[in-house]
Amino acid sequence: MRNIKLVLSYDGSEFNGWQTQPGFRTVQETVEAAIAAVTRETPIRLNASGRTDSGVHAVGQVANFRTASNLLCERFLRGINANLPEDVAVLSAEEKQESFDANRDAVRKLYRYVIHDGPAPTPFLRKYVARSRRPLDAAAMARAARCLVGTHDFRCFETEWPNRATSVRTITHLRINRFGDHIWLDVEADGFLYNMVRAIAGTLMNVGRGYWPESQPQAILEAGDRTLAGPTAPAEGLFLMRVTYEA
Amino acid sequence: MRNIKLVLSYDGSEFNGWQTQPGFRTVQETVEAAIAAVTRETPIRLNASGRTDSGVHAVGQVANFRTASNLLCERFLRGINANLPEDVAVLSAEEKQESFDANRDAVRKLYRYVIHDGPAPTPFLRKYVARSRRPLDAAAMARAARCLVGTHDFRCFETEWPNRATSVRTITHLRINRFGDHIWLDVEADGFLYNMVRAIAGTLMNVGRGYWPESQPQAILEAGDRTLAGPTAPAEGLFLMRVTYEA
Repeated sequence: MRNIKLVLSYDGSEFNGWQTQPGFRTVQETVEAAIAAVTRETPIRLNASGRTDSGVHAVGQVANFRTASNLLCERFLRGINANLPEDVAVLSAEEKQESFDANRDAVRKLYRYVIHDGPAPTPFLRKYVARSRRPLDAAAMARAARCLVGTHDFRCFETEWPNRATSVRTITHLRINRFGDHIWLDVEADGFLYNMVRAIAGTLMNVGRGYWPESQPQAILEAGDRTLAGPTAPAEGLFLMRVTYEA
Repeated sequence: MRNIKLVLSYDGSEFNGWQTQPGFRTVQETVEAAIAAVTRETPIRLNASGRTDSGVHAVGQVANFRTASNLLCERFLRGINANLPEDVAVLSAEEKQESFDANRDAVRKLYRYVIHDGPAPTPFLRKYVARSRRPLDAAAMARAARCLVGTHDFRCFETEWPNRATSVRTITHLRINRFGDHIWLDVEADGFLYNMVRAIAGTLMNVGRGYWPESQPQAILEAGDRTLAGPTAPAEGLFLMRVTYEA
């Protein structure tokens, strides 16, 4: 069997997340059906780097599937896209060694959380940003976020803790940039707990609004208590940007 | 009565164009209702720089209305936005002299037509670009477009000609730029005929695809025959960017 790696982009607005659930429109089921239409094989099992929740977007989700089809990767790309609805697309298709596993082999993931805090709403971006009616102090948010970089027990930023063997993760990169009325929170880590980026975003937004001191994230981290952290920020601001594998 | 100028942005995807039509969702009716909710006056009559068609977007549409309300413009801005759905927003509100008329006093309008010709579709931009499955030669399109700049009879690029006293217009600026897989066609003129930008876009796309020689727009202009021009390009690629008034 050949092992094909896909890079996928999707607008999460009208999907009930990645993972197949009977009776719901999901990315996994939609893409599996498009692959099956090309390879004429069923069932196709598409294995993603990780699930994304309902409403969360992807610019560079990665998944792999196995097939006996001898089509060129270029033909997979065109054929799958021709069978997909407009809110999901395959950006690339590539054959990998037999052992490649998009979930297990992912070494880092980069998420971007986008916040809009301008005086007027933005009609074109309404499904792609979280909106703050109050202007945020992005510099204060950046200072408050510094303590999160590195290896920590992030259980305080996890919904439904404990749901993993360990809640220790390493954030390798965390950057907050303002572009006009938009703030981008970029977080790259070796793995993420459930709703971790959205809990961090909700916490930092409380700092940016001036509700909380810049020292609050450090205090939350030390206490290890989810009830102290900010609310889970809305799904529509979150994008899975990139998944990195060992070369 | 005070005379208030609004700058409006809207995602045209779910509107049946600007102009009120019974039984359809239009931008005019939607914004008039939001103004009326703030001023408690009915009917409010909102006068735009021009109609936009079904599916056409606006980044900077301009309109004016008259009111006896003594609210500050800042309050109009916030109040109207609070009463608008998410796909339309007021970007600014400003009091003008009694004689100001957003339609009659417009001296130039700038439209942008956006085309995507990359190998894979773009889920996030699917409602905001026209898609060409074949890569376009943007440089050839730019050369072919040069003959359109200046004062000409544009009847050949008008749908349902003749529907105006004159079809002579002056294009003051026409630029074609490629940004990665996107091509922007910017056209500024003292006025536009019905579907004029979309007919120009459809014509230039036929040049960009290599179907037509670069000399074709000149030949169409000289013949003055709409049936020679390219098809009317899809509405979703078109944005009303800016309306200019005398200072």
